[in-house]
Amino acid sequence: MTETAWFWTGTTGMALGALVIFAVSKTRTQDEEAHKVVHVLVCLVAAASYLTMAFGQGGLTVGGRTFWYARYVDWSITTPLLLLGLCMTALHGAHRRPGLVAAVLGADVLMIVTGLFSGLSEDPTHRFAWFLVSTGAFLALYAALFGPLRREAGRRDPERRRAYVRNAVLLGGLWGIYPVVVALGPRGAGVISPTTETGWIAVVDLVAKVVYGLVFSRDSKIIAAGDLRRGEVVPAPVVEHPVPSDAQRS
Amino acid sequence: MTETAWFWTGTTGMALGALVIFAVSKTRTQDEEAHKVVHVLVCLVAAASYLTMAFGQGGLTVGGRTFWYARYVDWSITTPLLLLGLCMTALHGAHRRPGLVAAVLGADVLMIVTGLFSGLSEDPTHRFAWFLVSTGAFLALYAALFGPLRREAGRRDPERRRAYVRNAVLLGGLWGIYPVVVALGPRGAGVISPTTETGWIAVVDLVAKVVYGLVFSRDSKIIAAGDLRRGEVVPAPVVEHPVPSDAQRS
Amino acid sequence: MTETAWFWTGTTGMALGALVIFAVSKTRTQDEEAHKVVHVLVCLVAAASYLTMAFGQGGLTVGGRTFWYARYVDWSITTPLLLLGLCMTALHGAHRRPGLVAAVLGADVLMIVTGLFSGLSEDPTHRFAWFLVSTGAFLALYAALFGPLRREAGRRDPERRRAYVRNAVLLGGLWGIYPVVVALGPRGAGVISPTTETGWIAVVDLVAKVVYGLVFSRDSKIIAAGDLRRGEVVPAPVVEHPVPSDAQRS
Repeated sequence: MTETAWFWTGTTGMALGALVIFAVSKTRTQDEEAHKVVHVLVCLVAAASYLTMAFGQGGLTVGGRTFWYARYVDWSITTPLLLLGLCMTALHGAHRRPGLVAAVLGADVLMIVTGLFSGLSEDPTHRFAWFLVSTGAFLALYAALFGPLRREAGRRDPERRRAYVRNAVLLGGLWGIYPVVVALGPRGAGVISPTTETGWIAVVDLVAKVVYGLVFSRDSKIIAAGDLRRGEVVPAPVVEHPVPSDAQRS
Repeated sequence: MTETAWFWTGTTGMALGALVIFAVSKTRTQDEEAHKVVHVLVCLVAAASYLTMAFGQGGLTVGGRTFWYARYVDWSITTPLLLLGLCMTALHGAHRRPGLVAAVLGADVLMIVTGLFSGLSEDPTHRFAWFLVSTGAFLALYAALFGPLRREAGRRDPERRRAYVRNAVLLGGLWGIYPVVVALGPRGAGVISPTTETGWIAVVDLVAKVVYGLVFSRDSKIIAAGDLRRGEVVPAPVVEHPVPSDAQRS
Repeated sequence: MTETAWFWTGTTGMALGALVIFAVSKTRTQDEEAHKVVHVLVCLVAAASYLTMAFGQGGLTVGGRTFWYARYVDWSITTPLLLLGLCMTALHGAHRRPGLVAAVLGADVLMIVTGLFSGLSEDPTHRFAWFLVSTGAFLALYAALFGPLRREAGRRDPERRRAYVRNAVLLGGLWGIYPVVVALGPRGAGVISPTTETGWIAVVDLVAKVVYGLVFSRDSKIIAAGDLRRGEVVPAPVVEHPVPSDAQRS
């Protein structure tokens, strides 16, 4: 397969993924609705990013080779959204411990942006230095996901607890493949070709966005069912009680 | 009128619009204050964008013609702010149904950014493909504004309900002019000249930001008056009760 | 000292600052945790920005000289974070008066972005016009910090009130140095050399981010101790009470 064929595969897969997640997700609670929107948006942004690359846009020549910066623009939007979904699961809404959520998203954006700087660097020393900085941010992100955020999830209901661990392990495992592929790729050790690198990234992207989104969607249903059974949430995304009572509180 | 004269008209109109909206808007409730800030910021960002173009900055040569990308940077900031104002009206605060608000803003940003990609594409096929993607996002936005968001507004007090419909129709109608102008313009069918395109966009921009801001400001006053009359809100933007009671809740 | 030596000083100082603030800050309340995250992220973003400049990246040749736009990208992220910290102190959480917080952050981002436009302008008239616009936004920011935000802080507990005034005066004073340095520098009056400008900015940056962060961290401890003593907050960043009670409210 050529690099362009991989880009078209990514575009089609992400667009179909958005449609399927839109079709199968429910919106019985505010939480479930928010998760649905997060995962549909993630696939749509990725589809747009793959379309730029399929059109031969979104690339720059760095050190004689094409560097697809469009991926990093995609990731700087989609990875915070995916992590926000995880934080909402662990914390039962992202407004709790806003500092912790900001730390998770901040480490993530630093990881993506310094990864972009690595790819944009002509000098191999600079490229490697930025790669190390990006990896450091990745380790900080892991520490947050499997430290405080996991402890928070452990205090919630069993559905939430199990969903958090499953999704954090899945996402953490998949995301760990990216730096390895980049390190082995044409801008790193040079062991794998540009086309192979693009193919690997496309496959991991599709699994980490579409498959992960479907798993998450199923987990959102289980969580929402538990919330509704325990009567813990208003049983609709729409707030049915009249305005005065909650305007008083705001 | 030359293109530059249109840009100066835009700059002056937006700056004056910011001043007038600042002067006539009130801040009796948190809601009213938030709406005032939204509409003043929208005009200030648009004024800065028009000033870049009046200075001959904010343009790129694409396919032998100047493409003013500054507009799209402006729109990627101002259109989400305008929609946030509409969401706050429909939902009585944007913190309700965060998923729905995210869907509205996400569709909007996808529409603007893929519209920018259309303008930046040299190849007419790519330009048209991105235009179709952008139009698709626009239709999704319409569906959200006149579907779930309108139903939400329908559950609120009569002032809010009427204001939502009036503003959504006004904004939806005005925004529908942009894709038509671009489709007829020099990068589309070529029926209207670059200067005519710039003139049309400047006029629609001024109506959709300054006139719309003034209409919205009047509606915010009616809504705030209703809220205050029914005793539904704290009658000042400042929270007067002492801190302990609400810190307990946070 | 050469310009590059100043950039390395900035990189090292900001990275060490992040470590020290991380080490000395506490997370006993949600507020304290949020402040810690804000100040660590500010130093990390600034360290990344200084590293780009130390590597000779993050600069553009404008009018025959290197213009380090990386600073402005840094500032467009770090100054809103610093102001968000101040708003959280004044308002006991940033969710109160969201309109006021949006006005503060909006004026700040307009100030930084139009300052960037000034630096990117080849034409001295354009450069000066943008400088005036940026200064206008700065004055609006001062008006918000020492007007409504200070009045809000005045309604809170004594620790918060004193901390707000101390930090607002410190930040307002330090930030006032930047436009003076830029006005005297090579793109303004030309009284000071590029290296002197870089040195001054590095020193003010380090004080305004690391030293200020440490002062703020100490104040956060005093405020958190007061909140805990008065029993005004849940005594841990983790919400210990079970989910149902607050899910009912959301």
